[in-house]
Amino acid sequence: MNSKATQSEIKTVPRVVIVGAGFGGLNAAQTLASAPVNITVIDRRNHHTFQPLLYQVATAGLSPGEIATPIRSILSGHKNIEVLMAEVTGFDLARKMVKASDHEIAYDFLIIAAGASHAYFGHEEWEALAPGLKNIEDALEIRRRVLLAFELAERRAAAGETAVPLNFAVVGAGPTGVELAGTLAEICRHALAHDFRAIDPRRARIHLIEGGEHVLPSYPQDLSRSALQQLQRLGVEVLTSTMVTRIEPGVIYMGEARMEAAVILWAAGVAASPLGKELGVPVDRAGRVLVQPDLSLPGHPEVFVIGDLAALKDASGKLLPGVAQVAIQQGRFVAHLIRREMGKEAGVAQSRPAFHYHDKGNLATIGRAAAVADFGRIHISGYIAWLTWLFVHIFFLIGFQNRMLVFIQWAWSYFTYERGARLITGSTKLPGWHDAKFDHPEGEPAEREISAAARK
Amino acid sequence: MNSKATQSEIKTVPRVVIVGAGFGGLNAAQTLASAPVNITVIDRRNHHTFQPLLYQVATAGLSPGEIATPIRSILSGHKNIEVLMAEVTGFDLARKMVKASDHEIAYDFLIIAAGASHAYFGHEEWEALAPGLKNIEDALEIRRRVLLAFELAERRAAAGETAVPLNFAVVGAGPTGVELAGTLAEICRHALAHDFRAIDPRRARIHLIEGGEHVLPSYPQDLSRSALQQLQRLGVEVLTSTMVTRIEPGVIYMGEARMEAAVILWAAGVAASPLGKELGVPVDRAGRVLVQPDLSLPGHPEVFVIGDLAALKDASGKLLPGVAQVAIQQGRFVAHLIRREMGKEAGVAQSRPAFHYHDKGNLATIGRAAAVADFGRIHISGYIAWLTWLFVHIFFLIGFQNRMLVFIQWAWSYFTYERGARLITGSTKLPGWHDAKFDHPEGEPAEREISAAARK
Repeated sequence: MNSKATQSEIKTVPRVVIVGAGFGGLNAAQTLASAPVNITVIDRRNHHTFQPLLYQVATAGLSPGEIATPIRSILSGHKNIEVLMAEVTGFDLARKMVKASDHEIAYDFLIIAAGASHAYFGHEEWEALAPGLKNIEDALEIRRRVLLAFELAERRAAAGETAVPLNFAVVGAGPTGVELAGTLAEICRHALAHDFRAIDPRRARIHLIEGGEHVLPSYPQDLSRSALQQLQRLGVEVLTSTMVTRIEPGVIYMGEARMEAAVILWAAGVAASPLGKELGVPVDRAGRVLVQPDLSLPGHPEVFVIGDLAALKDASGKLLPGVAQVAIQQGRFVAHLIRREMGKEAGVAQSRPAFHYHDKGNLATIGRAAAVADFGRIHISGYIAWLTWLFVHIFFLIGFQNRMLVFIQWAWSYFTYERGARLITGSTKLPGWHDAKFDHPEGEPAEREISAAARK
Repeated sequence: MNSKATQSEIKTVPRVVIVGAGFGGLNAAQTLASAPVNITVIDRRNHHTFQPLLYQVATAGLSPGEIATPIRSILSGHKNIEVLMAEVTGFDLARKMVKASDHEIAYDFLIIAAGASHAYFGHEEWEALAPGLKNIEDALEIRRRVLLAFELAERRAAAGETAVPLNFAVVGAGPTGVELAGTLAEICRHALAHDFRAIDPRRARIHLIEGGEHVLPSYPQDLSRSALQQLQRLGVEVLTSTMVTRIEPGVIYMGEARMEAAVILWAAGVAASPLGKELGVPVDRAGRVLVQPDLSLPGHPEVFVIGDLAALKDASGKLLPGVAQVAIQQGRFVAHLIRREMGKEAGVAQSRPAFHYHDKGNLATIGRAAAVADFGRIHISGYIAWLTWLFVHIFFLIGFQNRMLVFIQWAWSYFTYERGARLITGSTKLPGWHDAKFDHPEGEPAEREISAAARK
């Protein structure tokens, strides 16, 4: 289709609607782009987020613009792809319609790639106290809290108040929790070390709390052990087999134990997009849609669910993990199925192959020069794993400009220990920091001492 | 002072408190850093903002981290400088105390460099409808609105709604208004031109509304005329001698005339920080403090007011402009005065020189390869002025890393016409876009047409 196509020509090509422009949706769109179809990509954000580097935005190493790219600029070269920024609210599978913010959109094929968000296991009230990390806004909120905690601590110490323990707690030791904890430790010991006068950031404590027995539980045990050692070397205090039972402003409870924490971050649970439940088919406990082996919906061969929203088991009966590689391969697989069936009558089930995941290996970064890599029989730890992680991630970043900018930022940080994006924007409040007292001090404020002695 | 100094040594050196870490405050601090003084820099933000490039963040060309740097990282090399992120609420000049968020801070010398913000001339209710551009949050809000307007227009057009005129209105044609209008025009015609399917961004209209007779009224008339031509060449529609009389959500009134505008931006007025009024000395209509020729406060030789917050006339009786150069020179001037008088009894008036501003020239950018430069007798327009502007601004950016990143972004944008930071974060609402109707469509939504014919 091009802009000179007539109305009748347009009606003859199938319409593919893709919900969500994460790794799955984007790869489906790009694989379909050269086919004679009209594609509509709908996302409630205007940008694709390179989620594997979100923790770098949360820890002030990269700017949001460096890991997020406008969806329509990624796809602008394809005249048969239309991008809509809209919130999808539901589906009418019988009429083949997607319900979005302000209108309905008809499809012949539908690919749902709406992803996942964090889960608080029925304690949704914890979200405001312990934000998770799934999008740019989350990352900026975490960055704000982390940087603000140091600022508030410095202000208190300068005012002669008794020192507040600068505790950071990260709940959940999967890849995201490990990245956050490791990078926080690195920042406290290096990037911030010399910037304060009344407090010493090197005395900040980073706690990583995991309910299971091991950090990085989905990795082979030798790599879990290595990750634990690398975390400890960075100064992270790891608590395994420890369940968080309650969170209050600035306080975290683990059974009988109680810990004050300036900032609490949540990396413990994932729930699939609520759109999965709108489909009227069975979902698993995490809200993932139980798809057919070809990723289609039972009874709806024209509807596919891919990525973090799909629950599919591999040959050994293990659920496919919620990682970018799975989503990318599923997006391409589904796009190829559609290309194959386009000529035939849409919506009629064809004999289809099952989706098979080709695991190319897993990488988890821990901090500066610290990572683990699992390539099946080959396990790597430390510097080499970190270099691998670095180049793989820069390579897969979308846009040459972003690759260049991120590479420079990284090289710069590596040699100078600086963090380029240490901005606090938005509110200047932190939960649990006794705002009332500090904003309206009662009585005479303590006389201030600019004194090196205040540094403990 | 270093961290091993004893308490008694600390008490003997004068304490200088600097309020505000803009160009004035930062230059004062850096000039004083090598002197035997204890310096406290207080700012309510954690970062210094390179304001001349704010419009680039507002128009998605640069990321906030590239033009803003943490104050404490700029000053971290100086052990006698302490940085506090706190809101200054007032002063006790008799007791020589600054009142901040949670405590009082004693000073021997005080430098107030709290800057200015936008003014709505008694119509503060316009701020939510027509944001101004003074800090990173403002820039992100403008970016959000501009990008969102295109997204909403595309969504409406795709839904078969009648097209909304994509009008942008910029009120005020000083340097900021001219930069915003010129860059918006450039974006519509280039960066966004091929990214939409149902609307054509090149048909967006940019209106620049100025109450006075000329754009860039503070520039020589030949440069004002040249700026007008360059704006028109970029496609900006300039309305001079036109007063804005009312603003409603999405609508702007100029006397009898009424214009619908998807986004309204305010660059028309500046008011000094309200802290000026806390000093109990005369201020001018814009709230600027009427300082002595040495920039000190009448009756308080130990208190200085500099930068946009100070009202000082030059030899010809003209008020010094609110530009970075004035603030930088004043910061250094005041720092040198303090260094000279440190040995003597603090707070006792000395015979002091008057501040003289050395005008090194003025540069205003308009858009891609469009600018004007006023170097006294030499006036330059167009490409050469723009190159000068570019290199001057990159050179003065704080931090080598930022200079490198901004240079790359610019080179990239110049050759590809791309904008690297086109992210919408935060709310997805725009004032005046009839949210109610769109969020809860009444009746049957119009059947959608993916049709090239929808492009007008």
